[in-house]
Amino acid sequence: MSAQQTDQQRQAEREEVLAKARRAKEVAPVIAALPTPAKDAVLLAAAAALTERAGEILEANARDLELGRQNSLAESVLDRLALDQDRIESIAGGLRQVAGLQDPVGEVLTGRTLPNGIQMKKVRVPLGVMGMVYEARPNVTVDAFGLALKSGNVALLRGSKTARCSNEKLVEVLQETLAAHDLPREAVQLLPCESHDSVQDLITARGLVDVVIPRGSARLIEAVVTGATVPTIETGTGNCHFYIDASADVEKAVAMLLNGKTRRVSVCNATETVLIDAALADEDKRAVVAALQDAGVEVHGDVEKHHAFGADVSPATEADFAEEYLSMDIASAVVDGVEGAIAHIAHYSSGHTEAIAAQDAHALRRFADAVDAAAVVLNASTAFTDGEQYGMGAEIGISTQKLHARGPMALPELTTTKWILEGTGQVR
Amino acid sequence: MSAQQTDQQRQAEREEVLAKARRAKEVAPVIAALPTPAKDAVLLAAAAALTERAGEILEANARDLELGRQNSLAESVLDRLALDQDRIESIAGGLRQVAGLQDPVGEVLTGRTLPNGIQMKKVRVPLGVMGMVYEARPNVTVDAFGLALKSGNVALLRGSKTARCSNEKLVEVLQETLAAHDLPREAVQLLPCESHDSVQDLITARGLVDVVIPRGSARLIEAVVTGATVPTIETGTGNCHFYIDASADVEKAVAMLLNGKTRRVSVCNATETVLIDAALADEDKRAVVAALQDAGVEVHGDVEKHHAFGADVSPATEADFAEEYLSMDIASAVVDGVEGAIAHIAHYSSGHTEAIAAQDAHALRRFADAVDAAAVVLNASTAFTDGEQYGMGAEIGISTQKLHARGPMALPELTTTKWILEGTGQVR
Repeated sequence: MSAQQTDQQRQAEREEVLAKARRAKEVAPVIAALPTPAKDAVLLAAAAALTERAGEILEANARDLELGRQNSLAESVLDRLALDQDRIESIAGGLRQVAGLQDPVGEVLTGRTLPNGIQMKKVRVPLGVMGMVYEARPNVTVDAFGLALKSGNVALLRGSKTARCSNEKLVEVLQETLAAHDLPREAVQLLPCESHDSVQDLITARGLVDVVIPRGSARLIEAVVTGATVPTIETGTGNCHFYIDASADVEKAVAMLLNGKTRRVSVCNATETVLIDAALADEDKRAVVAALQDAGVEVHGDVEKHHAFGADVSPATEADFAEEYLSMDIASAVVDGVEGAIAHIAHYSSGHTEAIAAQDAHALRRFADAVDAAAVVLNASTAFTDGEQYGMGAEIGISTQKLHARGPMALPELTTTKWILEGTGQVR
Repeated sequence: MSAQQTDQQRQAEREEVLAKARRAKEVAPVIAALPTPAKDAVLLAAAAALTERAGEILEANARDLELGRQNSLAESVLDRLALDQDRIESIAGGLRQVAGLQDPVGEVLTGRTLPNGIQMKKVRVPLGVMGMVYEARPNVTVDAFGLALKSGNVALLRGSKTARCSNEKLVEVLQETLAAHDLPREAVQLLPCESHDSVQDLITARGLVDVVIPRGSARLIEAVVTGATVPTIETGTGNCHFYIDASADVEKAVAMLLNGKTRRVSVCNATETVLIDAALADEDKRAVVAALQDAGVEVHGDVEKHHAFGADVSPATEADFAEEYLSMDIASAVVDGVEGAIAHIAHYSSGHTEAIAAQDAHALRRFADAVDAAAVVLNASTAFTDGEQYGMGAEIGISTQKLHARGPMALPELTTTKWILEGTGQVR
């Protein structure tokens, strides 16, 4: 009896996901056709509504936090979940920023007149229905709505159960703003989050969903990308390397390395492995490891090889080099010059951001040419891979895949193109 | 015992696919780094070798044809499989054409200097390892190799069992040409085709394969796209519509319609449904249907609705409107003006090419704006959606998906990008 109820609940959840996806597809043409000023007006009004209704939002958030504490969620999860007046203001500020960005829809990317007189152009158009699967942070709910709307897309949001009350309240505010502008509420919809199966329902809704973007842990992203039958964009896993060539200015290299590792340890552009050129002087090698340890970073490496130049490190296994620590830990390996670094990175890279410190032009050129990643950084910290730093404005995520978009994704990456051919009766 | 042997064979096939994929990944950096003249030299030499060794190739092809006849393959399949001197010359000509196309690798797409002095550029780079899954035509073997090589990629080819001898001989010629140029033979490899499972092995080889492009029947494409865990590009299914608005020049409209339907019925840009504006005069409606029937096309539609304006058609079911006939058949529906056409297309379109014949500017604009497809054609035949017609040179396929590439795909669509940041020690 209980198992049957569960089946019924499961079926109901699945039907809710598909019904919402169908509604999203129905209203997509309305949102796709909106002129820029109409979209910007909604974004600004939504920002104002979020600020005005901060009290309600904080109340909903308090319920999530209370439940989270009862369920003994980790402090780090509770911190990502928690909203306060400042965070709400910052979320609203994000919408205002998106309102100020250039609308990508309608941009003509290329065009020509064919010998037969047909005039053709390739125009940016919205993707249509954009699904997001994400974890605790309620700000993603509003960010995804803002970027989707500005790029003419509708959003299907599958947030986590831990943030349910917060997400429901935020989406209520957004939907009421849409309705007040005579726009369909279904331009943003929250999907059920009772079970993991609702993720599966979303990522297999072929014909209804144009793209799903997962944002969160490596495990979540892998599950979405491998389980999906709709198109997905893999984002955010960053096992970023920083290679110090024998030709590097070691003092600068250490500053860049520390910046990449310790600026914020929980972000995908944080440095997770340092590669030290075997040809570097022993005292410089020692200085690199010591600087990390002095900054409170635990260095994991081959104990004997590090001992050989006078450094004491924690023992590392193969897994350490594949790990995205997201903590005050780093893996360290000694490699044979730039070719050794390139080979190590080819083996362990997640394709996010890979950096080199060197003064030798050949080493820099080889590294830039041979390393296969979204971003290759010469003589700067890995921390720069970020939509705002790149001058793109807000970002929806950082693609680590090769198709469609690679690196930080902003508004243009949430569009596709359409060829429009204008003839006068041509036949072939 | 026999089942166990089958298991062992299966295991061996799987290991062969993965071993070849690993080799492909190993040699990918060599091919990615090749300068344009080196690639062009191989393409021209391969073209010459194919012509020179036409005798051997035809012999291998004869074995496939003989086996195909024994297995009672359809004449249409045997025709696609068959090679002759002319077809080999045309395949070689394709390689020469690709040698003449611009190399997309290394193109700088955008760039800027950040306020902190970091100079950044976004550069086109090869995707890496490109898998192709295709059916009988042996020319795809050579075409895929040529486009992959010119765009700096290596090719893993999973052709059909019916073309095995032909494909093996063609790949032998290509590999020997590579070896003669001191390049790794594994820049092109043929995968086992004993069972359908080898397709599954290829499309789930995460970390080894950067993209898989299926080319063939709608069923094959669907199986690859939904079964893959590696990125795929959906190509080629074309349920193309031709809408005749009441404002159309009916004589011209009929010529465009016939061209789209009858020029070549087996291609993806062929017209499969005609939509007739209810406001068109009955005699014009009759003329449209009669012209199709006079050309030998069987028209499928709502018998009563067509009878109402004096046309006799074969009865159509829902399935007819979803069908990509690829034959001398067409579905016909009467719709309420351009809005009716847009709604019909939104329901049944495969997102390939949708065309309108009209003289009314509003109808044309609405159709161009509202129809969601790779190509929207105003007053021309659907037959124009094709890489060569678009002035792109050779094409690897026509993408009907929205991510990465939409419409005809040529060399640039077989690349991804890499951000290269050059700093002088910047930290954040």
